[in-house]
Amino acid sequence: MTQPSAALIIIGDEILSGRTQDKNINSLARFLHDRGINLREVRVIGDQHDRIVAAVQALSGEYDLVFTSGGIGPTHDDITTVAVAAAFGVAAIRHPEADALLINHYADTDLDYNSARQKMADIPEGADLIYNPVSAAPGYRIGNVHVMAGVPKIFDAMLMQVEAMLPDGMQQHRVSVQTALGEGTLAEGLAIIEARYNGLSIGSYPWFKPGQYGTAVVVSALDRDDVDKAAADILQLIEQLGGSGTMEDTVTGGNTI
Amino acid sequence: MTQPSAALIIIGDEILSGRTQDKNINSLARFLHDRGINLREVRVIGDQHDRIVAAVQALSGEYDLVFTSGGIGPTHDDITTVAVAAAFGVAAIRHPEADALLINHYADTDLDYNSARQKMADIPEGADLIYNPVSAAPGYRIGNVHVMAGVPKIFDAMLMQVEAMLPDGMQQHRVSVQTALGEGTLAEGLAIIEARYNGLSIGSYPWFKPGQYGTAVVVSALDRDDVDKAAADILQLIEQLGGSGTMEDTVTGGNTI
Repeated sequence: MTQPSAALIIIGDEILSGRTQDKNINSLARFLHDRGINLREVRVIGDQHDRIVAAVQALSGEYDLVFTSGGIGPTHDDITTVAVAAAFGVAAIRHPEADALLINHYADTDLDYNSARQKMADIPEGADLIYNPVSAAPGYRIGNVHVMAGVPKIFDAMLMQVEAMLPDGMQQHRVSVQTALGEGTLAEGLAIIEARYNGLSIGSYPWFKPGQYGTAVVVSALDRDDVDKAAADILQLIEQLGGSGTMEDTVTGGNTI
Repeated sequence: MTQPSAALIIIGDEILSGRTQDKNINSLARFLHDRGINLREVRVIGDQHDRIVAAVQALSGEYDLVFTSGGIGPTHDDITTVAVAAAFGVAAIRHPEADALLINHYADTDLDYNSARQKMADIPEGADLIYNPVSAAPGYRIGNVHVMAGVPKIFDAMLMQVEAMLPDGMQQHRVSVQTALGEGTLAEGLAIIEARYNGLSIGSYPWFKPGQYGTAVVVSALDRDDVDKAAADILQLIEQLGGSGTMEDTVTGGNTI
């Protein structure tokens, strides 16, 4: 049984110019990983119509789920919605519920619900809203594409809404083993252990501090027994190499965010 | 005159699984932005041969400069070099200078220069090395593709080496000062020196080896005189703090860190 696949399109000149440090890749990656969905590719592109259309069309055809972040605000360079509508060959039209949400939101403020802000109520025809508990302006899902805000707090809040829209995923099991041995010392042995199990992957992550170094080894697979067996193999390998290791189960929280 | 264009390929399952928060997109974005080079696209892909080959071929054809990060370490999932070599239709062969650098590096440690680590001396035929002042294992440039480490500290240090390899961008002058003092010991003094000069920046890059540590301090600015004066200030600071420093010109001195 294969895991659902996913891709993310980050839309924003501010990421490419270095003015803003992206946080949404990591938020989405962890969200999907915890749900057994395989994030396979991320693209970061600028606020350009043709590039957005091309990326949405290419990735929505290649992966089960696509997520976008950025370009759905009120300013002139927020062009994601028009581009996504074009990618699906539909119009972006004023959405009555989105409009009502925004009217209600701005009524509580001293800000004017002007034409720039009204643009945020334009949604591609046939899309389902993804609610925004932070600042009202919604995202939406059209086809397999989930269009979300670029601001990390709003992106994260929208992910909570997306939860209920996801197809049934699967949970990967994951165990990590910590040791003070160097990554290169372990490398050959880890390759041999990984090859023993079907669909199991072993990653190694070296770390350094003044006067200390070590490696975190992470084992993951759909089959919990395989993960436990491989982790035991790794502990044995570490001891054979003269070190010691400690194991921790990194999937404890399950589906709770 | 149009700005040169660039793309970045981040290679690493650990980014897509959410285990690691990427920092290299922002570092490269700011580095290129400061030099008038337009970062147009970033792709994040996993440690998979065919995906790396396809991304390198597509992006190196489309943009003036391509950068990659990740997958050049000693473990079995570090497959970037073999894939980049394949993308250019050449072999990855043991590079005598890279081999010498690594032999020298490991001779100072109690780590074995085993076959996993020797793999880091395999470089695509015809590539130029990008030196690694942090942990010796070099990156390289082949065609318009710059292959660099994924660990952010090493990625940043390699970017300093890339400076002199850039086409007609604005080449900053740059001097590096090596010392066995820790980064935290130097921090306050470096901030004071940096504030003395207009448009001058000072970066500090701590490095660690078993039983040893130190800091590479890199001074850069468009004005060569300011760089030389600030480097002299830094040597004086190091001596006041009870250390000693050595200076290297990282632009005219070529690629020697």
